[in-house]
Amino acid sequence: MPLTGPITLSDNRYGKAENRIVRIRRGGERHEIRDVNVSTVLRGDFAAAYTEGDQSAVLPTDTQKQTAYAYAKHPGLDTLEDYGLALAGHFVADIAPVTSARIEIEEYAWQRVSIDGREHDFTWKRRGPEVRTAEVTVAEPGRAWVIGGVKDLVLLKSTESEFAGFLTDEFTVLEPTDDRMLATALDARWRFAETEDVAWDAVYEGVLAALTEVFATRYSKALQQTLFDVGTAVLERFPVLAEIRLTAPNKHHFDYDLGRFGLENHGEVYYAADRPYGLIHATLARADAPDAGLAWEP
Amino acid sequence: MPLTGPITLSDNRYGKAENRIVRIRRGGERHEIRDVNVSTVLRGDFAAAYTEGDQSAVLPTDTQKQTAYAYAKHPGLDTLEDYGLALAGHFVADIAPVTSARIEIEEYAWQRVSIDGREHDFTWKRRGPEVRTAEVTVAEPGRAWVIGGVKDLVLLKSTESEFAGFLTDEFTVLEPTDDRMLATALDARWRFAETEDVAWDAVYEGVLAALTEVFATRYSKALQQTLFDVGTAVLERFPVLAEIRLTAPNKHHFDYDLGRFGLENHGEVYYAADRPYGLIHATLARADAPDAGLAWEP
Amino acid sequence: MPLTGPITLSDNRYGKAENRIVRIRRGGERHEIRDVNVSTVLRGDFAAAYTEGDQSAVLPTDTQKQTAYAYAKHPGLDTLEDYGLALAGHFVADIAPVTSARIEIEEYAWQRVSIDGREHDFTWKRRGPEVRTAEVTVAEPGRAWVIGGVKDLVLLKSTESEFAGFLTDEFTVLEPTDDRMLATALDARWRFAETEDVAWDAVYEGVLAALTEVFATRYSKALQQTLFDVGTAVLERFPVLAEIRLTAPNKHHFDYDLGRFGLENHGEVYYAADRPYGLIHATLARADAPDAGLAWEP
Amino acid sequence: MPLTGPITLSDNRYGKAENRIVRIRRGGERHEIRDVNVSTVLRGDFAAAYTEGDQSAVLPTDTQKQTAYAYAKHPGLDTLEDYGLALAGHFVADIAPVTSARIEIEEYAWQRVSIDGREHDFTWKRRGPEVRTAEVTVAEPGRAWVIGGVKDLVLLKSTESEFAGFLTDEFTVLEPTDDRMLATALDARWRFAETEDVAWDAVYEGVLAALTEVFATRYSKALQQTLFDVGTAVLERFPVLAEIRLTAPNKHHFDYDLGRFGLENHGEVYYAADRPYGLIHATLARADAPDAGLAWEP
Repeated sequence: MPLTGPITLSDNRYGKAENRIVRIRRGGERHEIRDVNVSTVLRGDFAAAYTEGDQSAVLPTDTQKQTAYAYAKHPGLDTLEDYGLALAGHFVADIAPVTSARIEIEEYAWQRVSIDGREHDFTWKRRGPEVRTAEVTVAEPGRAWVIGGVKDLVLLKSTESEFAGFLTDEFTVLEPTDDRMLATALDARWRFAETEDVAWDAVYEGVLAALTEVFATRYSKALQQTLFDVGTAVLERFPVLAEIRLTAPNKHHFDYDLGRFGLENHGEVYYAADRPYGLIHATLARADAPDAGLAWEP
Repeated sequence: MPLTGPITLSDNRYGKAENRIVRIRRGGERHEIRDVNVSTVLRGDFAAAYTEGDQSAVLPTDTQKQTAYAYAKHPGLDTLEDYGLALAGHFVADIAPVTSARIEIEEYAWQRVSIDGREHDFTWKRRGPEVRTAEVTVAEPGRAWVIGGVKDLVLLKSTESEFAGFLTDEFTVLEPTDDRMLATALDARWRFAETEDVAWDAVYEGVLAALTEVFATRYSKALQQTLFDVGTAVLERFPVLAEIRLTAPNKHHFDYDLGRFGLENHGEVYYAADRPYGLIHATLARADAPDAGLAWEP
Repeated sequence: MPLTGPITLSDNRYGKAENRIVRIRRGGERHEIRDVNVSTVLRGDFAAAYTEGDQSAVLPTDTQKQTAYAYAKHPGLDTLEDYGLALAGHFVADIAPVTSARIEIEEYAWQRVSIDGREHDFTWKRRGPEVRTAEVTVAEPGRAWVIGGVKDLVLLKSTESEFAGFLTDEFTVLEPTDDRMLATALDARWRFAETEDVAWDAVYEGVLAALTEVFATRYSKALQQTLFDVGTAVLERFPVLAEIRLTAPNKHHFDYDLGRFGLENHGEVYYAADRPYGLIHATLARADAPDAGLAWEP
Repeated sequence: MPLTGPITLSDNRYGKAENRIVRIRRGGERHEIRDVNVSTVLRGDFAAAYTEGDQSAVLPTDTQKQTAYAYAKHPGLDTLEDYGLALAGHFVADIAPVTSARIEIEEYAWQRVSIDGREHDFTWKRRGPEVRTAEVTVAEPGRAWVIGGVKDLVLLKSTESEFAGFLTDEFTVLEPTDDRMLATALDARWRFAETEDVAWDAVYEGVLAALTEVFATRYSKALQQTLFDVGTAVLERFPVLAEIRLTAPNKHHFDYDLGRFGLENHGEVYYAADRPYGLIHATLARADAPDAGLAWEP
């Protein structure tokens, strides 16, 4: 039956997306670089801007941009997470209508150029494709959540992966396999149980090492199992983490049929397919994880 | 303090993403086309695949692909929504471990080629950039939710838009303006209160007409207000809709400073910026909207 | 044997790429829009900048940008081609070291929003995916070349296309077909024999109509033949054109094998493949075409 | 005046683009990977396919795909260049109508995963964004050309770059600078003087080292000078190379104006701009380079 109730603004938020900030530290001869893409999102009492066009409570997105650049200088952009906490904290503390602020950051990695085996002081090469992420939310001074992450971490193993024993129905034509290539572009996001005195960069490096090592060394009965193993290892190694969310496309590589041409092909020549692809999600959490609060709110 | 509780699989889902299906209907001389990108997502009792690598409850993503193609033939792909309801309903009804299924569909529009003012029977031109979307969830036969949508609907008006009277702070350098260009790439998703006997295609066309008309004809005091006006108009015109979620980047166009060269420029020559951009979200709902259930679950 | 001769700068050019300019004409109530992406390329006596770092002959790319924006106001951006001729002519005539200038332009199409069947005065919707292109080269005042074009014109016909009677060898497994889907994303560029008093916009519209009509109405024995027919029609209809270059991917759509599931599929359900794709090129020219000169130099 | 001469097919070519081939070598425990994107282009006597739809001389692009995969197994895909020479040589030698064949290859780099400082035998991580390229042309058995290359090699130096002393005109507003950030995404292609007994992989690694080292260590008076220095170093170090073509966008990073907020900013906080960007091209050649022949023909 048709709905007749009044129409209301049930949710809203706004901000400035994709501020491209590069920060160089020039203490002495050796420079340091951080190259980030910063998005700000504010929530609060902005209803009048929507319902009446009244901007008196609206801090312009241009101002949010200026603030993001200014905060990269002072208090500074040393780690993504502390920068995000300071910036979000400012919006909540100093801009009256704001009840919560979220700062989403991507970081593009740069590797020092190596000349005759020695790292150069101020020249870098972009490294990828993986991108580090951070999502920081402050609801009022004192309540804060941090999510670290990586996306597009592309991993491939050429053996020690199978897929067999699965459920079948009348549309199942897939043959089981006991040796296939396994490749994915991993997206992982991990929620911290703390937001103070965390060694943010060390945790990031450690999580990446864990993800990579477990992907490489554990035999895979399915991408699902690999994700669970990977997530378990991360949480076990880092008790500061409450939860991890993993998304992994199964980037299919099919043995190319060369038998038609009199050529054997046992896992040597593959067709790397674009679409479609399997897509697997898993969330793992500690039983004693603190409440997620606004951590995952977009 | 470090977490020590047991690590558990707290959520999971999986499916086959981006099955590119083109469906031609050949009843007589005049063909009909639907060109879609279909993703399937299953939820259910799949924990053993993660924790033990046991695939016995896992319907392969390859099977989901085969099924998506088969269902495009029978029962058929006439409307996105009915196709999605049939496909999701099948997974829930016929595959024992599945407790809910979600089908996400993008549709790419094709326009009949016109020859001497007459539409051709079997030749089309791609039309865009806007893409129609549908998200269909079935939890058990009888419980279903449908979300319609459009993304990348790029609209621009060259006058009757202002931005003034906003909140300022020490980082505010933006000047108010009483006549600016307003451009956006609208993403909108609307939740249906019903899933049976809905004129899906007519609602889509009607919503697009409403979005476009209100954007064009209402004076804009801010993109926020424009979104609210747009959303209100859609819900008012379509009592079958319970809720609408709107996301709109503010695609900034800046008056180019030509005064330095002795040239006046009053809203004639603009620089179209890439990044950063404002990003505004608004959700509007009917007070008597039925519960959203799993409709928005990814 | 190793080369020992002196190393020389054998070619060079430089410019400012992708200046995003939007031009609104506000003569009265009804506004007009042109939305372009302009790249400038200069050739000339710039060797010292390369070999010695001497910039004294180098007009900064920033200056080229300013000029591109200023020329959009005056003499103005009415047609892409006349704007490009003016801008390139300026660089050649007024900047001493420049011997030739090339202006490459993409234009993004906007369609007036229609409200109750009436076109709105100042609101538009982006239309695509096809993009109009123009490449204008001036070598000295008086010598000029113009190339018009379109890219990403995506066309599809669901019948009246075959592929049979082809050459085979030991790697040939393809079966001939007498009824297949034919789809492409056409890129076409046409060289004008004149650069003055040409109805640029009318030719563009006319060429698109010709391309589309011939694609639709001529039976296709191969994409090669279709390109030849299309190119012939364009040159026949427009005696102002000297040459046309066509590039067309064969966007493969494969009949999906549904027979395994007891379903017939005669050209109804297709898999739209991403990669690989056939890629066909054809150039057609008038026997009495004037020399191409620098027209196609990048 | 209008053209009236006969319309002819003045050029044509065709092939199969973007065959995504992954090749694993499994000799023993340690696997080797090559991940490539292969496009084939054939030229020859194919006019009848265009003018009459006669396919009898046309080797299907599907056959070219099969051949590309088969050749990855035998004779094999060890180096891009030898694989390309074999594949192109086959088309020219064995397919009668083919007069020349071109094989274009992109290679995506994979880095072995490191576990406790030890490289894993069969697990890799994608490394980028730079992509290795090879373009191999064979005109008849015995005549061959090879071009090596890299694209999207993104380099940045935070000092030792200036831009001053440039030409000015009435549209020049740029201020000279004696210390700016210099960043680019280098595309380089180098033509070999030989096609036999070349250490292809070693040359690639050596050229990348040269490009990177010179970019880092030479003071830059302009991107033009940097390209010339880079190109000179490559040709000097590799006498097997006849020519190098360099294309480099100037990826602008602008000092952000923080003075408005009472903050000093001397090369610390930058805005990384998307568009527009300077775009610089340079070609360097040995005076005794052999003729380029068909090497650069697309």
